[in-house]
Amino acid sequence: MGDILVLNESQLRACVTLDRALIDEISQAFACLAGEGVVMPPVLSMAMPALNAEVDIKTAYVPGLPGFAIKASPGFFNNPAAGLPSLGGFMVVLSAVTGQVQAVLLDNGYLTDLRTAAAGGVAARYLAPEQVPVAGIIGAGVQADLQARALMLERPVGEFRVWARDADKAAAFAEGAARRWGRPVSVCADRAVLVRESQVLLTTTASRQPLLEADWLHPGLHITAMGADAPDKTELAPAVAEAADVFVVDRLSQSLERGELRVPLVEQKRRLRQAPVELAELCRQARSGRPSPQAVTVADLTGTGIQDTAIANLALRIAAGRAIGTMIENR
Amino acid sequence: MGDILVLNESQLRACVTLDRALIDEISQAFACLAGEGVVMPPVLSMAMPALNAEVDIKTAYVPGLPGFAIKASPGFFNNPAAGLPSLGGFMVVLSAVTGQVQAVLLDNGYLTDLRTAAAGGVAARYLAPEQVPVAGIIGAGVQADLQARALMLERPVGEFRVWARDADKAAAFAEGAARRWGRPVSVCADRAVLVRESQVLLTTTASRQPLLEADWLHPGLHITAMGADAPDKTELAPAVAEAADVFVVDRLSQSLERGELRVPLVEQKRRLRQAPVELAELCRQARSGRPSPQAVTVADLTGTGIQDTAIANLALRIAAGRAIGTMIENR
Repeated sequence: MGDILVLNESQLRACVTLDRALIDEISQAFACLAGEGVVMPPVLSMAMPALNAEVDIKTAYVPGLPGFAIKASPGFFNNPAAGLPSLGGFMVVLSAVTGQVQAVLLDNGYLTDLRTAAAGGVAARYLAPEQVPVAGIIGAGVQADLQARALMLERPVGEFRVWARDADKAAAFAEGAARRWGRPVSVCADRAVLVRESQVLLTTTASRQPLLEADWLHPGLHITAMGADAPDKTELAPAVAEAADVFVVDRLSQSLERGELRVPLVEQKRRLRQAPVELAELCRQARSGRPSPQAVTVADLTGTGIQDTAIANLALRIAAGRAIGTMIENR
Repeated sequence: MGDILVLNESQLRACVTLDRALIDEISQAFACLAGEGVVMPPVLSMAMPALNAEVDIKTAYVPGLPGFAIKASPGFFNNPAAGLPSLGGFMVVLSAVTGQVQAVLLDNGYLTDLRTAAAGGVAARYLAPEQVPVAGIIGAGVQADLQARALMLERPVGEFRVWARDADKAAAFAEGAARRWGRPVSVCADRAVLVRESQVLLTTTASRQPLLEADWLHPGLHITAMGADAPDKTELAPAVAEAADVFVVDRLSQSLERGELRVPLVEQKRRLRQAPVELAELCRQARSGRPSPQAVTVADLTGTGIQDTAIANLALRIAAGRAIGTMIENR
């Protein structure tokens, strides 16, 4: 049996980064999801209240890719008190031919961060207005940085405004981001103002309360909401779904169960202006999901197993080409 | 962050084997399951019909153990045509304190085989009659061997009789087993006769059709049925559940969904003589589940995440003591 490749986080960081090639790869995986043959079971979620912790496990088989990933994302929320990050994780890649383990990706969540940002890039590609003089960011964590970078890969952005619950964190983020991105980045203390001034808004928090109200929306706005990935999380007021002209989801079943459609559609039985569209459809047809420059569009990203399988295959392809990693004899 | 230990199959085989210590370990994990604090989500099952393949993912947090396992069991049923085993798998152990990956166990399903057999040992400990002049085995695969060995660790067994769909395979198994076990092992071509002559019966197949009829049962018989672990598998005719004096399950929810109680209780609405008992209760109380020497008892084992977590912790404890394995820098 073939040897098994083990890659650690720094090796994976050397292989894969957030660029247009990664966004293409994730877009292609979504295009497959719209076709036949993808198998993506519901997320396995394990909450461990005694540990203040949870683990989500995702997987998906995507026809045409040599392997499929089984990915675990633990969140251990007592970790910061011990100086450790809350989030971690790993992926294991199994052969799509034999089921044998091909590789173990000890990424501590790095690949999850990237594939999440890349889905934001896909959403921007198909939904954002062509010109983005001002982009707003809600949140000041890893995804605030990555989602903004994904947007910049797809659209010219003039400047960024950022809001975060912790004003000091927002200020520090703005300062660092301005330097890293070579763009003006300012703090905006009022979310309503932030939304009204932005053509694209990125929400990137683990909020349990809506941070964005429907009456802040304005013609031409695109929102990518990537924070909600569990039934108790939400960033958008329920009326936002109703007010949007187009509501795009990465996976409808997940958005209804653990995303931004749960409260408006399942709990409150609201109606959308038109049926939600899966991002996969836009990718498959390579068509814009924006019906007019004035439309309000929303993309709700809950995170899908196909993204994990896509980025894992990409990482393996690159690592194999460069002979990076540790080989373990499979015997 | 601490380094990550990677162990391959041969290293794991050097660490863990089927013995009474392992059965004790699995019994203790079941005892925990009867108490507070165990978190064991439903199995994540992914069927890939285009590949003639499936993957089951199991996990469980067991209070008191330093890590918890995430275990994947792929079954790729075209593999034998290519000279490869159908079943494989791996476990990843996360710290129960930080969620960080502690170890990767590239066992190709070896630990799953062992922990499955050890649960059979636990069932024998609490349910089998004290004397077993004749034990019957249905099936001639890996679990036929392991379940018989687990039984011998718990009870004196005079001789074995074996039935398998493929008579040649049964004959080869009997010959090899007699040599390995130092006991008479004979083939029995008639399952009804096999059951009637046995005091303990072990069913170890992936059958989709019942192999054992209720009118073959007789006073004093104990049956451990470990084959059914998916909704389409069954080894026992539905009337067996009704006819048994005591019906023990490893996890009631799993037995109803993917074990031997699915057809009789969920589909056919039959009634048991008494409510099903979880093996965990017997382990917690360390009490026999056999009400009398004449009772007919059945144990249905579907396989649980606590067994994976228990054996993974055991393997790590032993490997750490012997400095076996490859350390990967977690950076």
